Amino acid sequence: MSGQNALVMPWEIRKQRGSCTETLSDLVAVEEPLQIRLEFEKWGEWQEKDLVVTMRTPGHDFDLVMGFLYAEGIIQAEKDLLGMRYCQRVKPEEEGNVVRARLRGNLAIDPENLERNFFTHASCGVCGKTAIEAVSCKAAELPMDGRWTIPAETIRSLPLALNAEQTGFNYTGGLHAAVLYDASGKMLLLREDVGRHNALDKLIGAALRQGIAPRENKIVLLSGRVSFEMVQKAVNAGIQVLVALGAPSSLAVRLAQEKNQTLIGFLKHDRFNSYSGWERIS
Amino acid sequence: MSGQNALVMPWEIRKQRGSCTETLSDLVAVEEPLQIRLEFEKWGEWQEKDLVVTMRTPGHDFDLVMGFLYAEGIIQAEKDLLGMRYCQRVKPEEEGNVVRARLRGNLAIDPENLERNFFTHASCGVCGKTAIEAVSCKAAELPMDGRWTIPAETIRSLPLALNAEQTGFNYTGGLHAAVLYDASGKMLLLREDVGRHNALDKLIGAALRQGIAPRENKIVLLSGRVSFEMVQKAVNAGIQVLVALGAPSSLAVRLAQEKNQTLIGFLKHDRFNSYSGWERIS
Repeated sequence: MSGQNALVMPWEIRKQRGSCTETLSDLVAVEEPLQIRLEFEKWGEWQEKDLVVTMRTPGHDFDLVMGFLYAEGIIQAEKDLLGMRYCQRVKPEEEGNVVRARLRGNLAIDPENLERNFFTHASCGVCGKTAIEAVSCKAAELPMDGRWTIPAETIRSLPLALNAEQTGFNYTGGLHAAVLYDASGKMLLLREDVGRHNALDKLIGAALRQGIAPRENKIVLLSGRVSFEMVQKAVNAGIQVLVALGAPSSLAVRLAQEKNQTLIGFLKHDRFNSYSGWERIS
Repeated sequence: MSGQNALVMPWEIRKQRGSCTETLSDLVAVEEPLQIRLEFEKWGEWQEKDLVVTMRTPGHDFDLVMGFLYAEGIIQAEKDLLGMRYCQRVKPEEEGNVVRARLRGNLAIDPENLERNFFTHASCGVCGKTAIEAVSCKAAELPMDGRWTIPAETIRSLPLALNAEQTGFNYTGGLHAAVLYDASGKMLLLREDVGRHNALDKLIGAALRQGIAPRENKIVLLSGRVSFEMVQKAVNAGIQVLVALGAPSSLAVRLAQEKNQTLIGFLKHDRFNSYSGWERIS
């Protein structure tokens, strides 16, 4: 159960094909709970609070925590996080599955409201606002100033890069990937997870930790479908061009359009669909 | 924004294929927030509490609420829910997106702990237990008494039924389905949603509301991948045979094995993989 950064786990399966049955060892995508525990200063004392547990694929956990806290608006920059470490005071089966994240001292945190805030923000509506209204309060529109455009050819070449690099998926069929490219289609970062949201959080967190600003002339590719929350996270991170191999939802396309994000779905080697922000495609 | 039970929404897209670009109207899967508001009796007075907001595809909302409350252990049977209705005291854009669920009067509910409980149960680990341990406390092992087996041929015939009936997915590529079959492979119920968990919650809720016990010689088919939480929901509902078109995760197969559930993945018309509970396949 400990987070040994394995993307896959062997498992004995029975394969049924026509009238043949064989028993063999196969690989499945690893899924384990990750608990994020915040440490923050209040009235001159260090306090701690369990924020959330997410079911994730172990590996790049600090990227995930950084990206999650950023996407949820708990931190505004990489420097707001003083440090991260795996909790040592845990049961053996929790080893590697609890991360302590220490926030900058003067960061305004209301511990009583954290759980509520997270809930509200992650799912919206609890506060009486609709999802669209809730995100409108937070994220600014992305700039659409015509300063950069991407040739359609560059976009069509992205999936080839994904197939070549996305290792976990090839073995299990059960992992999602999020990939960061520069404007020429060169791959900069790739992160994988059983959860779509986690893969994107890991990617955004990794970019922050490595000092790569996703907002400047970058493309993000997702291996699956695009929900409202995925667009919300991408807009918060300033990502102007979001490309997916799967379908977007209705709230995803509405939010992308409202925020001037270029949203592309159903990417294949010879075609794709644009749902918003066509002006950035040349 | 109101929940008019539309699975799909028209949206103007730009289709890029080779060097051709055309603008046309396409369909996307509808995603909207659903807020579940509980009404419960405490010390002789009716109180209310917002439980959770989930991003869902409108339609079969009462099935979703029933199934969610059941899967999360807030109700133990259909009769624990006195009634459900759409909240009328909402803003226009929230119309059809807030459901009030009235719990049976003497149901033991601790409002202060509801949010925490939900959190703990949905994601586990918060209480200091691992995900596997947490569910072990709740759900009993499924019976493996050899009283019924399913021919492999019946299982292989399931996807054909799914393709024929799953209407929303055919149009958008963005919806998940959960389907209930009897032991002969005859379809009893089908529910769709942008969210995998919601589709299963809707199916379980619909079965409860229609008096169909999913535990007795039934098969459930999922159109996507299988996470820990999906198996958890299915085990809680007593589903003995869970079949998926996609891949299961590591925690999903471990939990299914521990609970004697037959878990099948990568179902195609001529083959499938069994991860646990092979004894039920003949």
